[in-house]
Amino acid sequence: MKITVIGAGSTYTPELVKGIMDISSEVKVDELILYDLEESEEKLETIYQFSKRLVKDLFKVVKPKNLIDALQGADYVIFQFRVGFLKARENDEKIPLRYNLIGQETTGMGGFSCALRTFPVIEKYIELVDKYSKATVINFTNPSGHITEFVMNYIGFERFIGLCNIPVNLLHMISQVTGYPPKDIFVKYYGLNHLTFLEKVYLKNEDATEKLLETVKLELANIPKEDFPGWLIECLKMYPNSYLRYYLMEKKMLKKIKKEGTRAEKVISIEKQLLELYKTGDKIPDQLSQRGGSMYSTAAAYLIRDLHLSNGSVHILNTRNNGAISNLPDDYVLEIPCMVKAGKVFPTSLGIADEFASGLIHIVKMYERITIDAYLKKSKNLALKAMLLHPLGPDVEDAPKLLEDILNANKDFIKLE
Amino acid sequence: MKITVIGAGSTYTPELVKGIMDISSEVKVDELILYDLEESEEKLETIYQFSKRLVKDLFKVVKPKNLIDALQGADYVIFQFRVGFLKARENDEKIPLRYNLIGQETTGMGGFSCALRTFPVIEKYIELVDKYSKATVINFTNPSGHITEFVMNYIGFERFIGLCNIPVNLLHMISQVTGYPPKDIFVKYYGLNHLTFLEKVYLKNEDATEKLLETVKLELANIPKEDFPGWLIECLKMYPNSYLRYYLMEKKMLKKIKKEGTRAEKVISIEKQLLELYKTGDKIPDQLSQRGGSMYSTAAAYLIRDLHLSNGSVHILNTRNNGAISNLPDDYVLEIPCMVKAGKVFPTSLGIADEFASGLIHIVKMYERITIDAYLKKSKNLALKAMLLHPLGPDVEDAPKLLEDILNANKDFIKLE
Amino acid sequence: MKITVIGAGSTYTPELVKGIMDISSEVKVDELILYDLEESEEKLETIYQFSKRLVKDLFKVVKPKNLIDALQGADYVIFQFRVGFLKARENDEKIPLRYNLIGQETTGMGGFSCALRTFPVIEKYIELVDKYSKATVINFTNPSGHITEFVMNYIGFERFIGLCNIPVNLLHMISQVTGYPPKDIFVKYYGLNHLTFLEKVYLKNEDATEKLLETVKLELANIPKEDFPGWLIECLKMYPNSYLRYYLMEKKMLKKIKKEGTRAEKVISIEKQLLELYKTGDKIPDQLSQRGGSMYSTAAAYLIRDLHLSNGSVHILNTRNNGAISNLPDDYVLEIPCMVKAGKVFPTSLGIADEFASGLIHIVKMYERITIDAYLKKSKNLALKAMLLHPLGPDVEDAPKLLEDILNANKDFIKLE
Amino acid sequence: MKITVIGAGSTYTPELVKGIMDISSEVKVDELILYDLEESEEKLETIYQFSKRLVKDLFKVVKPKNLIDALQGADYVIFQFRVGFLKARENDEKIPLRYNLIGQETTGMGGFSCALRTFPVIEKYIELVDKYSKATVINFTNPSGHITEFVMNYIGFERFIGLCNIPVNLLHMISQVTGYPPKDIFVKYYGLNHLTFLEKVYLKNEDATEKLLETVKLELANIPKEDFPGWLIECLKMYPNSYLRYYLMEKKMLKKIKKEGTRAEKVISIEKQLLELYKTGDKIPDQLSQRGGSMYSTAAAYLIRDLHLSNGSVHILNTRNNGAISNLPDDYVLEIPCMVKAGKVFPTSLGIADEFASGLIHIVKMYERITIDAYLKKSKNLALKAMLLHPLGPDVEDAPKLLEDILNANKDFIKLE
Repeated sequence: MKITVIGAGSTYTPELVKGIMDISSEVKVDELILYDLEESEEKLETIYQFSKRLVKDLFKVVKPKNLIDALQGADYVIFQFRVGFLKARENDEKIPLRYNLIGQETTGMGGFSCALRTFPVIEKYIELVDKYSKATVINFTNPSGHITEFVMNYIGFERFIGLCNIPVNLLHMISQVTGYPPKDIFVKYYGLNHLTFLEKVYLKNEDATEKLLETVKLELANIPKEDFPGWLIECLKMYPNSYLRYYLMEKKMLKKIKKEGTRAEKVISIEKQLLELYKTGDKIPDQLSQRGGSMYSTAAAYLIRDLHLSNGSVHILNTRNNGAISNLPDDYVLEIPCMVKAGKVFPTSLGIADEFASGLIHIVKMYERITIDAYLKKSKNLALKAMLLHPLGPDVEDAPKLLEDILNANKDFIKLE
Repeated sequence: MKITVIGAGSTYTPELVKGIMDISSEVKVDELILYDLEESEEKLETIYQFSKRLVKDLFKVVKPKNLIDALQGADYVIFQFRVGFLKARENDEKIPLRYNLIGQETTGMGGFSCALRTFPVIEKYIELVDKYSKATVINFTNPSGHITEFVMNYIGFERFIGLCNIPVNLLHMISQVTGYPPKDIFVKYYGLNHLTFLEKVYLKNEDATEKLLETVKLELANIPKEDFPGWLIECLKMYPNSYLRYYLMEKKMLKKIKKEGTRAEKVISIEKQLLELYKTGDKIPDQLSQRGGSMYSTAAAYLIRDLHLSNGSVHILNTRNNGAISNLPDDYVLEIPCMVKAGKVFPTSLGIADEFASGLIHIVKMYERITIDAYLKKSKNLALKAMLLHPLGPDVEDAPKLLEDILNANKDFIKLE
Repeated sequence: MKITVIGAGSTYTPELVKGIMDISSEVKVDELILYDLEESEEKLETIYQFSKRLVKDLFKVVKPKNLIDALQGADYVIFQFRVGFLKARENDEKIPLRYNLIGQETTGMGGFSCALRTFPVIEKYIELVDKYSKATVINFTNPSGHITEFVMNYIGFERFIGLCNIPVNLLHMISQVTGYPPKDIFVKYYGLNHLTFLEKVYLKNEDATEKLLETVKLELANIPKEDFPGWLIECLKMYPNSYLRYYLMEKKMLKKIKKEGTRAEKVISIEKQLLELYKTGDKIPDQLSQRGGSMYSTAAAYLIRDLHLSNGSVHILNTRNNGAISNLPDDYVLEIPCMVKAGKVFPTSLGIADEFASGLIHIVKMYERITIDAYLKKSKNLALKAMLLHPLGPDVEDAPKLLEDILNANKDFIKLE
Repeated sequence: MKITVIGAGSTYTPELVKGIMDISSEVKVDELILYDLEESEEKLETIYQFSKRLVKDLFKVVKPKNLIDALQGADYVIFQFRVGFLKARENDEKIPLRYNLIGQETTGMGGFSCALRTFPVIEKYIELVDKYSKATVINFTNPSGHITEFVMNYIGFERFIGLCNIPVNLLHMISQVTGYPPKDIFVKYYGLNHLTFLEKVYLKNEDATEKLLETVKLELANIPKEDFPGWLIECLKMYPNSYLRYYLMEKKMLKKIKKEGTRAEKVISIEKQLLELYKTGDKIPDQLSQRGGSMYSTAAAYLIRDLHLSNGSVHILNTRNNGAISNLPDDYVLEIPCMVKAGKVFPTSLGIADEFASGLIHIVKMYERITIDAYLKKSKNLALKAMLLHPLGPDVEDAPKLLEDILNANKDFIKLE
C-alpha cells in the first residue's frame, strides 16, 4: 500500500505518520510519500527526516522527485495543503473584520476567500490523481466540505472523501464521559462541515440523548472559547457544532476575534516552535496538541485502515447525502455517519433533519454552490451573489468593497471578471 | 353569491367594495356582508353607511348580527382583520428596534410577533367558516403567506388562498412600462410572501426579461424607500421583492426606520382622516391611495370573479407548491402564478428556483414552521429557536430578552410556557 | 407565420389544412409547407393540389424543393410521417400475433418495433429543425408519447410537443353529453400517451366526476370495439384510455384482432379511396372520418393558434411532468393538461396519481426508457430487456425469436448488435 | 433476554431453536417462549419436548399459558405462523390454476389471498405486542414483505423487521463459490421480498460482479426448478430472485406447477415425517432441509444477536427504503442491506435501482398497497383493482370469478363487501 501526502510540509504531518504507524500492524503499509511544493522544501526536509526517525523500518518513508512521482500508483492520497500558506489565511481572517464581519478560516467571508483560492489547485491535483493513480483521496484541506462539494458534484470525481477532526473528537469526548468505547457509540449527526448538529446519541442500544446533550462540550483550539448557554441546547434539542457560535453569537464572537487576534498569527508561532523540535527530536512533541487539528491523524489513518479492510465500520465523513437525510436533496455533500465497505462509503439513512438545522444547511449549501459557480465562470457578479446570501456575509453596501479587498489580497490565486 | 368580509371596519374596505362593484357586471353578487368586532363598531358603522351610498342598489350590503350570521352560507370569505389593531402593530415595529433589529409588520421579528398573535384567531375563524359555510377564504391578514402555511399545512383546511397586492402591482407596473395588458404578461415569479423573486418576464411569446429587469421598480407605500443598486439586479439576474431590502440592506433600512418612525403611527393618522371623509362622502377619497394596500381590492375582486367563472386565468397566489417549483418541496406554501379553474387554484410548473432565492426561501420557511410549532405547542423554547434561525432575528445574547418584551406587549394574545 | 408539415402525403393532411384555415381568421398564417419523401411524391402531389383548391387564397400552400427548404424559417413544424409506411405498420401488427401477443401500432410489441424504427428518423429531423429554424415541433408520429420521451429527455430538444387526438375527442364527447363547451370542462387526466386515466371531470366549478364516469365511452376507429364492463369503472373510479383494453382484456382483444385482421390493411384500403376523392374533389370527403385520426387537425391547429396568441388556454399534451403529478418523477414525459403561455406549455399541478394508474405508468415508462437505450446503444440485449418488462411483452421463451422476427422485418430501419 | 415465537408449532421451530443455541454463547438468552394456537397444541407439545431435549440447560424453554403470557416482557417476538395452516395454502396454490394463473404461496394471486387472510391476524397480534412488550418483531410470516409494508406504513408500528431466508442463502452461496466469508461479501441487492435483484457483488474491496453473475444459481426447495437462461442474465446484468421465474417464464412455470402438484401437498407430507422424528429424536433430522426454509433460523438468530450487540453488522432486511435506493420513494418497504446499530436497522444508500427492476417493483408495490386498502376498507372493488394490476393477475373477464373463488375458500378469514 502506497500512501501519498500532499502538503506534507505541514507541522501536522508527524501526527499523521504516527497514525499510519499505528495501523501498520493491521494493514500492510509499503510506502509513505511526503510531497510538498518547492517553497516548502526546507520544512518538508525537516519533517521528512523526523518522520524517518519516527517510523524506523515499519515502512518506507519517501520524499518524491516531483508530484507525478508522488502520485503514480498511490492507493490513498491525503490532501492537507494550504494554498498561499498561513500568510493567506491571515488575510482571510483579517479582511472581513474591516467590515465588522467574522473572519475565520472556514466560516463566513474568510472561508469564502479560502475556497476561491483553493478550487483551482484542487482541480489541478484531482486531474493528476486521476491520471496517475486509482487512489482514493482523503481531504483535510479547508474548507473541507465545500471542497468535497466542488470535487464530487462539479468535477465529478467520485473517489474523494472529505474529512474533519471534529466528529472524531466528539465521539472521543462522548466516550470519555460515558465510558463506552467509540465503536459502541452511534450518533445521528449531520450537516455541512463545520455546520453540523448532533441530534441523537446511542450507547449500544440505548438512546442516551437526553442524558448527554447538556454535558457534551467540545472545546476546539482553532476558535475562541465561548460557551453555548444551557437554554440554547434545551431549545434546539441538538448540540450544534462549535463553529455555530459564529452564526448564533455573531456579535460576541466578533468582539473576541478582534481582541484575541487572528488564529493564523498564533499558528505561525506554534509552527516555528514545532519545526525546531522536529529538527532534533525523535518523538511527537507535546506542543503539537496546541496546533489545533488534534486527532486528524487518527481520523485519516483509521479511515485508510477500514477502507482497506472493508470491515463495515462507521466513520463520519463528507460525502453525497444519497438519501441518508431524507428531507435534504440526494446530491448535497454532507458530513454524516457512513459505513465503510467495498472500498466505498455508504451514508446511513438517518431520517429527517431538524427544521432549524435544515434551514441553515440549505442557505449555506446554496452559498457554497454559487461560490463554486463564481469560480468556474470567473464571475465577480456570482461572487457578490454568494457573499450576499451567506448569513455571515456583508450588506449590499459593503459587498463590492469587501470583494475588491479579497481579490487584491489574493491576486496571485483568484481571477474574476 | 354571498361575500363576507371579516375585519370590514378597515379603511381599506371601500376600495374592496368598489372592486366588487366592478365585477358585479360579470358575476351576479347578491350580498356583501361587512363584519367586525364590537370594539370596531363605530368604524364599521361609518364604513357600512359609506358602502351603502357607494353601492346603491347594485347588490345588498349587510351588517350582520354576529359572526355566525356573517359566515352562514357565504361563498367567499375575505379575512382582512388585524389582531390587536394598529396599536399591536406599533409594538411589532418598535420592540425589535430596541435590539437593533428590523421592526416591520410582516418581516423579521415584527412579523414574528404578529404571526404568533394572529394564529389563534385564524384557527377559531377557520373552524367557524368550515362549520357554517362551504366558502373559499381569501386572506389579506398579515403575515399572509405565513398564515396560509399555517392554515393549509397545520390546520389542514384546503379552501384557503393567501393574497397580496404586490404581485398585482408588479404586473400593473410592467404593463405600464411595456404597454402590454396584464393578461399578455406572464412571469416566472416565486417565493414566500414578501420574499419573492421575479426571474422571467414574458410579453406574449417574447422573453423580455433582460430588457425589463433593470427598469422594474416597485415603490411601496408600506416600507421606507431605498433603491436596490443596479449592480445588485445584474448579479442576481432577478428582481427581488421590495421587502428584500430588509435582508440585503439591513443596516441602511434599520437607520431609515429609526429615523422615519413606525408605519403604524402614520397609518393611524391616515385612518383618522379617511374615516372623516367616509362619514359624509359618497366616492372613494384620493387619500386612500396613501394607505398602502393599493390594488388589494382589485386582486381580491378579480380573484372572486375568476374563481366563480372558472375561466382559467392566472393569478399570483399563496398556495401549496405542489410541484410548481420543482426543487422546492411540494408542501411549501409559496407565492406563485396559479391557474384558476374548477373552483381551485393550480400552481403552474415553472421549473427550478434560483439558488440564491431558494437559500432564503428555505431558511425563512423553516423559521415559519418552527414558529407555528411554537404556537401549537405553546413553547417558549420553540419560539426562541424560530427567532434564532431568522436571518433578521437576534443573537443568542438578545433572544430571551426580546422574546420576553414581545410576550409582555402581547400578553392578551400570546401564551407560551 | 410559416407552418411546415413533414409527412404531408398522409391522407389526414386535408383535415389539418382545414384546421389551419379555421384558425387563420384569428392568427395570420403566411405559408403552409407540405413536405414528404420522394417515394410519396404522387400522393403528395394529389394532396397538394387538393389543398390548394381547398385553401383558395387564405394563405399560400407550398410544395418545397427539399427538406431544408421546408424547414428554413418555419415557426411550427408538424411531424406526421410514418417510417416504412403502412407496410411496416402491418408487420408491427402481425408479427406479435405469431406469439399470441397483442399486435398494435402503438401498444405492446407492435409499438416497440414502430418506436425502434422511428427513433433514427426523428433524431435526424430534429437535428435539421434545430439547425434551420426556431420552430416548435408538434408531433403526431406514433408512438407519440414514447417519441416525446426520446426527444425531450434523450436528445434534449425542448421545443417539442407530443399530441394525440384522444384527449380532444374525450373533451368533445364530454361536451356533447353535458352541453358544456370544452373551455368550461376541466379534467384530471394523466398518464402516458395511450395509457391515460380520466380521474376527475369538472364542469365549471362543479365536480361532476361521479355523475359522468360511467357515461364516458370513447369509441375509436383505430382499435377493435370492446366495452369496459361497468364494474371495472366502478372499481377503478377512473375512466381508462380505450387502449387500456389491451392491458386489461388481453385475451379478448387478441381474439378480436386475430379475427378482424390488422388495422393497417383496412387503412390501406381507406387511403386508396380517399386519394381518389382528393384527385378531383374540392371539399373534405365524409370517408375521412373512418380514417381513425379524427380531430387531429383540430388539436394541432388550435394548439398552434393558442401558442401564437399566448392566451393561457389549456391543452392536453405530452410533455415533461415537471411536478404536475406530484408522485411521479419530474422528468417523465406524460400526457397531461397544460396551460399554453409565453410560447411554452406549463403542466398544471394535479396532485397525486392513483396507485393503479401509477403502477402501469411506471412499468411502461421504464420499458420506454430501456427501449430508447437499446436504440442509442444499438443493443439487442437491451431490446430483449425492454420486451421482457412490457406487460404485453413475451416470456423469456419467446423473446429472442420475436426480436429476430422484428429485426428481420425491419432490417432497413433498425440495426442492433 | 426473552424471545417469543408465535407459530411455534411449525416444524421449522427446531432449526430456530438450534440458531438461538448458537448465539447463546455471545448473548445471554434467558427464555425461549414457544406459543401456538390451541388447534396446534399437539404439534406444539411435540416441538416443545423436542426443543427441551435439544437445548438442555442452555436457557429456559417455555410453553406459555396464553398469548398475553407469551408476549409480556418479550424482547424479541418472531412471527412464523400461517393463517389457516397448510390447507389454506393449498387453496392459494390451487385456485389460480383454474384460471391458468400462477398459484404460489407468496407470488401472484396465491400471495394475494394469503395476504388478505393474514392481515387481520397480524393487526391483532401487533396490537398485543405493543401493549404487553417493547419487543422488536421479526417476521417470517408470508408474504413477508407485503406484511411489513402493512405493519410499518399502515399500522404505523415501527419495531418490525421482515425477514426472508433467500438473502442469507444467496450470501452463503456466494461465499461457497468464492471462498470469502459472508462478512467480506457486500451486495447491491434490492427490491420487494421475492422480487429482488442482485446487481453488484463486492468481495472485500473488489467489484466481482461480472465474474460472478453467471455463476450465481440459487436453488430453492419451495419452487419448481427452472433455469434462467444465460442470455437473460447477460441482458439484465443482474441476477433476479428465483421467484422472478414466475414473472419472466410464466407459461413454463405454469406448466410445471400443474404437473408437479402444489407445494402445500408436499409440505404436508414432509411435516408428518418430521413430527414423527421430533417425537423421539434429540437432534435436528436431515429431512428438515427439504422443508424449504433453509437458514431461516440462521437469519433470525444472527439478527437477534446483532441487534442486541448493536455491532453494526449488515443484514438484508425488509424495512422502509428511507432513501437507500434513491430513485424509489422513501416510504416503500424494500428488501435491502441494512446496518444493525442502536437497536435499529439502517438501510445503506445504494444509489439508483435499475430501470427493469424499478418497473416491476413499482407495479407490484402499487398492487400491494391497493390490496392493503382492500383489506382496510373491506372492499371487493379494491380487491379487484389490485388483482387487475398484478402482472400475474387475471384479465377483466376472469377477475370477478377468481375473487369469488378466493372469498369462498377463505370465508372464515376474509370479509369483503
